[in-house]
Amino acid sequence: MTLYRAPVRDTLFLLNEVLGFERHADLPGFSDASPDVLDVILDEAARLAENVMLPLNRVGDLEGCQHHDDGSVTTPKGFKAALDRYREGGWMGLAVPADHGGQGLPYTLHQAAGEYFSSANMALMMYAGLTQGAIAALIAHGSEQQKVAYLPALVDGRWAGTMNLTEPHCGTDLGLLRTRAVPDGKGGYSISGQKIFISAGEHDLCENIVHLVLARIEGAPQGTKGISLFIVPKFKLAKGGGLGKRNAVACGSIERKMGIHGNATCVMNYDGAEGALLGEENGGLKAMFTMMNEARLGVALQGLAISEVAFQNAAVYARERLQGRSLSGPKEPDKPADPIIVHADIRRTLMTMKAFNEGGRALLLWTALQSDIAHRAGDAKAREAGDDLLGLLTPVAKGMLTDKGFNHAVMAQQVFGGHGYIEENGMSQFVRDARIAMIYEGTNGIQALDLVGRKLALNGGRAMRAFMQEVGDFCEGNRADEKMTPFTKALKKSLNDLQAATLWLMQNAMSEPDNAGSAATDYLHLFGLVALGYMWSRMAKAAQVRIAEDVGEGRSFYENKLATGRFFMEHAMPETALRLARISAGADAMMALPAEAF
Amino acid sequence: MTLYRAPVRDTLFLLNEVLGFERHADLPGFSDASPDVLDVILDEAARLAENVMLPLNRVGDLEGCQHHDDGSVTTPKGFKAALDRYREGGWMGLAVPADHGGQGLPYTLHQAAGEYFSSANMALMMYAGLTQGAIAALIAHGSEQQKVAYLPALVDGRWAGTMNLTEPHCGTDLGLLRTRAVPDGKGGYSISGQKIFISAGEHDLCENIVHLVLARIEGAPQGTKGISLFIVPKFKLAKGGGLGKRNAVACGSIERKMGIHGNATCVMNYDGAEGALLGEENGGLKAMFTMMNEARLGVALQGLAISEVAFQNAAVYARERLQGRSLSGPKEPDKPADPIIVHADIRRTLMTMKAFNEGGRALLLWTALQSDIAHRAGDAKAREAGDDLLGLLTPVAKGMLTDKGFNHAVMAQQVFGGHGYIEENGMSQFVRDARIAMIYEGTNGIQALDLVGRKLALNGGRAMRAFMQEVGDFCEGNRADEKMTPFTKALKKSLNDLQAATLWLMQNAMSEPDNAGSAATDYLHLFGLVALGYMWSRMAKAAQVRIAEDVGEGRSFYENKLATGRFFMEHAMPETALRLARISAGADAMMALPAEAF
Repeated sequence: MTLYRAPVRDTLFLLNEVLGFERHADLPGFSDASPDVLDVILDEAARLAENVMLPLNRVGDLEGCQHHDDGSVTTPKGFKAALDRYREGGWMGLAVPADHGGQGLPYTLHQAAGEYFSSANMALMMYAGLTQGAIAALIAHGSEQQKVAYLPALVDGRWAGTMNLTEPHCGTDLGLLRTRAVPDGKGGYSISGQKIFISAGEHDLCENIVHLVLARIEGAPQGTKGISLFIVPKFKLAKGGGLGKRNAVACGSIERKMGIHGNATCVMNYDGAEGALLGEENGGLKAMFTMMNEARLGVALQGLAISEVAFQNAAVYARERLQGRSLSGPKEPDKPADPIIVHADIRRTLMTMKAFNEGGRALLLWTALQSDIAHRAGDAKAREAGDDLLGLLTPVAKGMLTDKGFNHAVMAQQVFGGHGYIEENGMSQFVRDARIAMIYEGTNGIQALDLVGRKLALNGGRAMRAFMQEVGDFCEGNRADEKMTPFTKALKKSLNDLQAATLWLMQNAMSEPDNAGSAATDYLHLFGLVALGYMWSRMAKAAQVRIAEDVGEGRSFYENKLATGRFFMEHAMPETALRLARISAGADAMMALPAEAF
Repeated sequence: MTLYRAPVRDTLFLLNEVLGFERHADLPGFSDASPDVLDVILDEAARLAENVMLPLNRVGDLEGCQHHDDGSVTTPKGFKAALDRYREGGWMGLAVPADHGGQGLPYTLHQAAGEYFSSANMALMMYAGLTQGAIAALIAHGSEQQKVAYLPALVDGRWAGTMNLTEPHCGTDLGLLRTRAVPDGKGGYSISGQKIFISAGEHDLCENIVHLVLARIEGAPQGTKGISLFIVPKFKLAKGGGLGKRNAVACGSIERKMGIHGNATCVMNYDGAEGALLGEENGGLKAMFTMMNEARLGVALQGLAISEVAFQNAAVYARERLQGRSLSGPKEPDKPADPIIVHADIRRTLMTMKAFNEGGRALLLWTALQSDIAHRAGDAKAREAGDDLLGLLTPVAKGMLTDKGFNHAVMAQQVFGGHGYIEENGMSQFVRDARIAMIYEGTNGIQALDLVGRKLALNGGRAMRAFMQEVGDFCEGNRADEKMTPFTKALKKSLNDLQAATLWLMQNAMSEPDNAGSAATDYLHLFGLVALGYMWSRMAKAAQVRIAEDVGEGRSFYENKLATGRFFMEHAMPETALRLARISAGADAMMALPAEAF
């Protein structure tokens, strides 16, 4: 049985003391999110995650989903009741604007609570996450009629959403997709084709499932320019409201997967299903990216969430498991052996996970805050700056936090030794579940190409310049603060590496595009380290301010922050030099062999 | 269905052209291993691995082992027939001295062939591997009578062996073990206690199972000094030879594990079982280490083996899967998309795996060669030097090759995208199987401590000095060879990092032992990189010699070696600087937090 305690104190530190929610009170919804309100909401989320969702995590893994001959899919026992608790608590619409039936609170808060839910039960939360993606796409691209027809039930959680992109022969390269949409003469379309890897494509949790489906209208241009997005409900909507007949879409089978067994991954067969165009004809990819960008941050959050829960279990085990003696002499001589947390190599893994999780949480919430600014700020310049940073940080957060999330699940499992390898203790499930986050919503290689090939150069590199300026200004502004030296010095050094890597790309990737491809993953991690180092520096600054205020009993919280941050700066940040060395090596050796030599 | 082609050409290159088997013709068994003989034997191993073992790999994963109420365990369909083919082919005793019923061929060759078998079916090969460990322990520590009684059937493969160390409360810390051995008054012992995580503890593959069991003789000293090793056969031996009655040892249950489902991981209950002392009273740990060291190299080999087979499948997929276009323009314009192998980020992962596998294979065979030298050389000095290097390289090979083996299984899975996450394509199994190799036979953290805390300082650091001398001499000796510069320059730089790290340990670990613990894992990887870089430099030298000889059609093999090696030197070796930076940061920040802060 795994354990989990939602890190509410840490989240509050970030929202109130580091990101300064109060400074953003002019953003719609933020004035409602006072420190007291945040505390209450996050406590509520913590209870739901810990008491309702967590106990079902292993149930979901063991039981999985069942596909029946009639095409229906049964989810694990208890999943429906738990998701009902989630929707009854109003969590689905927490950050949805009030005029669409939500509570209009900050998206940042939605992400903060979402971490707890995903830590407790990632497979369960995916059902809700996909619905939220559908809500976002409908708000951004739906007609008034479509919004009225679909949003209330989706925001309420009575209906669920899905994203239908992948086909057997096309995943990343959506230009190849073949699903057809034929105008039905009544303003709608008849959709036919097969989609695979559809998370939550069919299940028994909701009254209706609203599939958002990429398809090609007859006669549309080839490639990605001829793709449109369609709304295809499982049950058609009856004229006077309510549910009508079953649509011609069915789940053909579900996949046997490495993990997230509690979530049904479906082959979906569309056989002349009735669909309605969502957004513009041939504008499907753009519309899908509304969901995708949101989904990518959701996946980044899964990486952090699993890293956190796996870490917590490893930490408890390390405090309890007695084995060997400390190299510096027995620490608990009355016991037959010391707890393994005394061993420096165990500490190394625990500190690595802890330092990353606290930094990763800051990065994720800072990124989410950019989304709030991009969507809610009154000032156009502020919206633009938020959107720039959001676009830049999204692939970084997705790629970095999911790579690390998986690595840390593996590290946490390692702390358990052989006891981590057997399924009984739940550590294997964290590894198996976390693995998918590196793959879906665009593999991490694709995130890296999105960053290097697209986001870096967008608007003449405006976003990247602003990011480097902000980090550089922070270093400069704190140069006189001696207590900040361990942070600003390491951060500045890594920022220099990032600048050098960016310059290298500018000089070498135009003439030889493979130099961009060969550098991409290393560049993403280099960027991610600088972003995490910047987060740690800001957390350190906030902690030092509080310590200087003499916070009394709460002091150890801030002192531990400083110690954890110092570990991060010493152990994680030197990796930027390695990443720069790899980037500068270029594509030559990488591309030298003929394909048949592999 | 996964693919596998045993890399025979690569193995032959290493044995004949890099390690120079012919130069070691004075070692017993080596003169029988001429290039022609090696070719025939490795081809035979390849066929057995590819045609017999590989097809059962997924069967084993899906079917797993079954534990029955009577304590018996059924292995997956086909496993017995395949293992019979292995034993009938004489593979079990390939490197066992002829006077114990084996063929007396080099252990290095045994390891070379063993890689193919483990690539094809790791779970199946574990049954044989454990038997080989038991054979080694019996040869080293058994009485003449014990050797006569057990070795023929074990070397023939009719009987199997196991290692019984772990108990529920003690894994790494064997000093805590509680299994009791009570003298039975007839020269034997009555063994009682519970052992867990016993690989191949019970199965239906052999006539008898010879358990080697660590237990504490009544009245023995506490801790590791009071542990003895016992032979406890499943079926007692009848007076006149043949099998007698069932012994009081039974499999209580088997574990549900993340991977290696085809291998039965058993809880073994000893309830007054008849056992015989193997080796000296209270000398059990030393005797067990005979098996353990051999087993550690076997586990290192599993890391390499899975890395290789996973890589091969990823490479084939990358050549066939069409998705997107090369950044430098379409490479196969007639097809709807280019194969993904054209993308630099995919190349990066393929080259990383390929370069590591070829270097790792060299390291493993070089280490195995030290075992042959240590056991077979006529000259005592040569035996000592071989034993020194074997002891030093064993934890490095185990820790490095299994960490990388797992990482590369994950990388290979990533090449498949979503198709890697579903179980159908077999990539998930590689990840799940590879995971255990980082844990068993001593977690990789323990390997690192063995290296830093024990092997480095042994005999005044003699082994380490010899290793650094050898690598330094190679760099020096090839300084004038301009073609070797990309290799020797990078190798020398990393060797300097290793020397600096070793010096740092000497200066800082005595006064503060946690500095050794905090550095251990980074030190192991730093060492491993230097060892791999040295292997690549030697391979490059051998390739250049052959190219200079103008080998004609075979030339591309050597040119690809040079290109792959160059990639390794450029992309992998810069990591040594990062490892040194982490080591030099010391234990302060790592140990700063109180245990309750986690």
